[in-house]
Amino acid sequence: MLLEQINAPEDIKDLSIAQLEQVAEEIREFLIEKLSSTGGHLAPNLGVVELTLALHYLFDSPKDKFIFDVGHQSYVHKILTGRKDQFDTLRKYKGLCGFVKRSESQHDVWEAGHSSTSLSAAMGMALARDLKGENNKVVAVIGDGSLTGGMALEALNHIGHEKKNLMVILNDNEMSIAPNVGALHHYLGKIRTDRHYQKAKDELQQLLNKIPAIGGKLAKTAERFKDSVKYLLVNGGILFEQFGFTYFGPVDGHDLNGLIEVIEQAGNVSGPVLIHIITVKGKGYSPAEADSFKWHGISPYKIESGQVLKAVGPPMYTEVFSDALMELAEEDNRIVAVTPAMPGGSGLLKFGERYPDRMIDVGIAEQHAATMCAALAMEGLKPVYAVYSTFLQRAYDQVVHDICRQNLNVVFAIDRAGFVGPDGETHQGVYDIAFLRHIPNMVLMMPKDENELRQMMKTAIEYNDGPIGIRYSRINGRGVAIDPVMTPIPIGKWETVREGDSAVIVAIGPMVEVAEEAAELLKREGLNIRIVNARFIKPLDETMLRQFADEGMNVLVLEEGCQEGGLGSAVLEFYSLNRQDVSVRIKGIPDVFVEHGSIKEQRHEIGLTSDSVAAELRAMLPRVRKRVNGPA
Amino acid sequence: MLLEQINAPEDIKDLSIAQLEQVAEEIREFLIEKLSSTGGHLAPNLGVVELTLALHYLFDSPKDKFIFDVGHQSYVHKILTGRKDQFDTLRKYKGLCGFVKRSESQHDVWEAGHSSTSLSAAMGMALARDLKGENNKVVAVIGDGSLTGGMALEALNHIGHEKKNLMVILNDNEMSIAPNVGALHHYLGKIRTDRHYQKAKDELQQLLNKIPAIGGKLAKTAERFKDSVKYLLVNGGILFEQFGFTYFGPVDGHDLNGLIEVIEQAGNVSGPVLIHIITVKGKGYSPAEADSFKWHGISPYKIESGQVLKAVGPPMYTEVFSDALMELAEEDNRIVAVTPAMPGGSGLLKFGERYPDRMIDVGIAEQHAATMCAALAMEGLKPVYAVYSTFLQRAYDQVVHDICRQNLNVVFAIDRAGFVGPDGETHQGVYDIAFLRHIPNMVLMMPKDENELRQMMKTAIEYNDGPIGIRYSRINGRGVAIDPVMTPIPIGKWETVREGDSAVIVAIGPMVEVAEEAAELLKREGLNIRIVNARFIKPLDETMLRQFADEGMNVLVLEEGCQEGGLGSAVLEFYSLNRQDVSVRIKGIPDVFVEHGSIKEQRHEIGLTSDSVAAELRAMLPRVRKRVNGPA
Repeated sequence: MLLEQINAPEDIKDLSIAQLEQVAEEIREFLIEKLSSTGGHLAPNLGVVELTLALHYLFDSPKDKFIFDVGHQSYVHKILTGRKDQFDTLRKYKGLCGFVKRSESQHDVWEAGHSSTSLSAAMGMALARDLKGENNKVVAVIGDGSLTGGMALEALNHIGHEKKNLMVILNDNEMSIAPNVGALHHYLGKIRTDRHYQKAKDELQQLLNKIPAIGGKLAKTAERFKDSVKYLLVNGGILFEQFGFTYFGPVDGHDLNGLIEVIEQAGNVSGPVLIHIITVKGKGYSPAEADSFKWHGISPYKIESGQVLKAVGPPMYTEVFSDALMELAEEDNRIVAVTPAMPGGSGLLKFGERYPDRMIDVGIAEQHAATMCAALAMEGLKPVYAVYSTFLQRAYDQVVHDICRQNLNVVFAIDRAGFVGPDGETHQGVYDIAFLRHIPNMVLMMPKDENELRQMMKTAIEYNDGPIGIRYSRINGRGVAIDPVMTPIPIGKWETVREGDSAVIVAIGPMVEVAEEAAELLKREGLNIRIVNARFIKPLDETMLRQFADEGMNVLVLEEGCQEGGLGSAVLEFYSLNRQDVSVRIKGIPDVFVEHGSIKEQRHEIGLTSDSVAAELRAMLPRVRKRVNGPA
Repeated sequence: MLLEQINAPEDIKDLSIAQLEQVAEEIREFLIEKLSSTGGHLAPNLGVVELTLALHYLFDSPKDKFIFDVGHQSYVHKILTGRKDQFDTLRKYKGLCGFVKRSESQHDVWEAGHSSTSLSAAMGMALARDLKGENNKVVAVIGDGSLTGGMALEALNHIGHEKKNLMVILNDNEMSIAPNVGALHHYLGKIRTDRHYQKAKDELQQLLNKIPAIGGKLAKTAERFKDSVKYLLVNGGILFEQFGFTYFGPVDGHDLNGLIEVIEQAGNVSGPVLIHIITVKGKGYSPAEADSFKWHGISPYKIESGQVLKAVGPPMYTEVFSDALMELAEEDNRIVAVTPAMPGGSGLLKFGERYPDRMIDVGIAEQHAATMCAALAMEGLKPVYAVYSTFLQRAYDQVVHDICRQNLNVVFAIDRAGFVGPDGETHQGVYDIAFLRHIPNMVLMMPKDENELRQMMKTAIEYNDGPIGIRYSRINGRGVAIDPVMTPIPIGKWETVREGDSAVIVAIGPMVEVAEEAAELLKREGLNIRIVNARFIKPLDETMLRQFADEGMNVLVLEEGCQEGGLGSAVLEFYSLNRQDVSVRIKGIPDVFVEHGSIKEQRHEIGLTSDSVAAELRAMLPRVRKRVNGPA
């Protein structure tokens, strides 16, 4: 085993190509074995084994900066930089992060989790290097999917203009998370596969070689012509050359020898270079090669069969959303589903099969998706923008400026709202309440269980007074009975799910269950806690809030979202603006980034548990007890 | 005067080209005259007179949809659609909007204000049209500057893939607001001007024409080659053709005849078409042609001389920022200024002249700018991201994910925070507190006057514990004395600017002055209002807040920002989390979009005036009076 002796990048620098190839094999075996018990981003990492080896072989990390777009393909980098012994803890609480993490290693120089940031990061690092008069390499590794994100194109444009020395490695594996969409992808496909095009290149060269034989004048013309069109044709990467890059490729990303040669050569070119490498996602593990979509991020599995070990339980909210949307679309042909490259994760695959014309995957392009939804709504359709809470952050301005300002009937299906578990801090869906609640015209809901999600879907589709969103968790439902008929919920109407007069907990989503558990704990202490399911985060149920005030009720607001600007703040603002002094306590996520682990661990870490809720209510006890015992 | 008889698009359909040309001249005269007293976006509109005429001449608005990117170039469209009599009210309170406005006319089908949304809107409208089985044209008019915005590139990519019938008119005037930046612009410049390139095209054609004479085999090769490279060269718009568009152009955008011909021809092509037109910003008014940057958006002016009538007064906050940055950069060479296409508006022109290497204009690319700043900070520089509050919305995710999560020393200079006056609802800078305050690690300040802005600049540059922002208004300073030496302010420390014990107003920015006026009004009624300048929106001055609680003080929080999630909410949250019941009232901008007018009118509309503040305090009077008179 060569891998055993590799604890730092220096340890591979003296290896032969044959030895590096052996290391590549050992890394593949290592990843396939380790991830079979932890789960993780297997396919992307199997695709970049040779690339990562080549980079560490040729360049000097951390002096030379490797920037991995998204960062889920950094496992090989982690193995080569002294972290292979930590893979049993991958994506677990306090364990190895599934993305690049500066606190783990000096070799981790740029963190991500969201896509398309690497080119901007590389540009900043190259600018800083030149301003400081330093001389290191800056290398960004970006997938063809990430390249469609608007900010990557903004950066490409700027890089091409500034002509700084930096290297972009375009890892072209024909799919990001889902099959790529868009003209850019089509273009990459053409470069990769179009023999006609390749032949044309060769033929042009032949043609130009032969021209001098024709005669003086034409030769001169041809010579000038050669200069003019050289940049268009000879290197093959016309689009990137147009953007100001020197283009290398396409190169087989699993041919270590060829890869090292091209990267070394490109490293000597001044100005921005783009190396186009072709890789196979899941390379070396046949189940992953066969279905790299499924194996992008995978749960624990059996190595031999590739059988994924699935937890049993009630359906995930995503599945319930998926089924409800199918039912609604059957009856309402205004419904169009829009996804930014997440048809699988967002539960839209079935919809897309059934209604291919009404399913629009725009690629990684959250901003475009949002504004396109605005226009679809403007023309009387009912777009359902299915998006993860954390990725909706990318479209904040479009939600404000295009959708809410024009008050258009866009439905937001905001998946992975609240904690998301092992993806950790880059992916936590904890800000959407705070960044959506302050936008005029927005309606925002969250269901307490999977059956309520269905009613909210119906509510959203029938609502024709502007934008409306439903946020739901990345967890299983509660296993409740599903009403076959979906019935809309009156806008802004909350629901009392447990009676009580000692105090009231206003809770949303999965926090209703936590509140119920806390109420049970306190019942033993003689306290009767009322629980209200605040189905609408906006608008508030003002009638109910006034009633709390009239009753002199103490209120605890409980939410899995950031405390600043959340539902708790909304309740506080309501009483303040209505000049009512009501004792309101808020409990949400405090002002920190919460790292990876299970959702349960994350909730525990910041106190979104029944014990902690009960303790908070006990802290309100002087007042609450007084109500129980009567005035002193 | 032909223009007098034009009240709807139908009125130009039977005109001859010569008559249309006369109308164009009359429209120019009209705009130059009207805007000389109202101000407005003169140069962009003078550039699109012929284009707008051609569109209304050829197509049938509103059945055919015209989508103007940004929308500030829609004045000619407004003139042709029955609104020419309203131009005396342009950009005034309750008057004609300076952007496209659906409530004004059925011909206004898509509103904007922020750039780069038009292609996404066009795509949505084309998709909707096809799903509904309708048959109208969709035309997006976008400038070369707007095209660099990430979402426009996302849309371009998607449009090229879907092959819907839609028309993009690229209005290439060599500058958006400031000279364009980026490879894309360079590319457009090349198409426009590079004779070498044009010649190469011609020569290739000649070459190919001559090839058959050489001999059988080569001829066949050449023929195949011809097919292959045709799409690369013949049409000229290689980049756009790569993106899947049929390219037309470049066309002289002031040649009505040629323009009509090309647009008509392009309108018959199926799939997406791009018409590249070359226009002159400010066309027909020599001062504007000579300095189209200055004349992009202009204040009232004298027509003959082009002399701009400027109001006198203390310096604008932007100017104070500009000077302070120059002074600080002199001593601290870590400072780098970054702007997304707003070097003039953000006050960075002097900085760019003095420090060309340390001034980075990325073009319209707010997301890229933010993440690039993160990387600059990662490498030890001190990036100052100068951006309007409303445009920072575009970079919300990058602020969360790249800057704050990695806790990097990026300085945000957030200009046009609060109401912005005549640009109206698309540009109001009223959400930044709410969308920045909930992000961990963020520090956010606002100065009460121009001298304090300088101290805050010093504070921000010396702060090395993470991101820090200063928001400031689009108004003149208060005319206070300027300390020559800048002294940093302790982080999170508020300032009592007026003593009093009847109640306390916690105010930020220009609201401190409003509070002072209100306090003066109430002084006559025997009330002594304390005023605290909450220089830090985050972190709060917890010591001072605790003191208010200890004193049993009533608190009114006053801010020019949205009430939901604003500073008022922060104060409410603080007391709630600290389990202190303090009577807090909040006064900010309620949950509505506020339209164009003067800042004074906008403040008046929503009650951010001394009278309204005094009234709010009187409403707290039962309590306040009690303090004045002693307990009953």
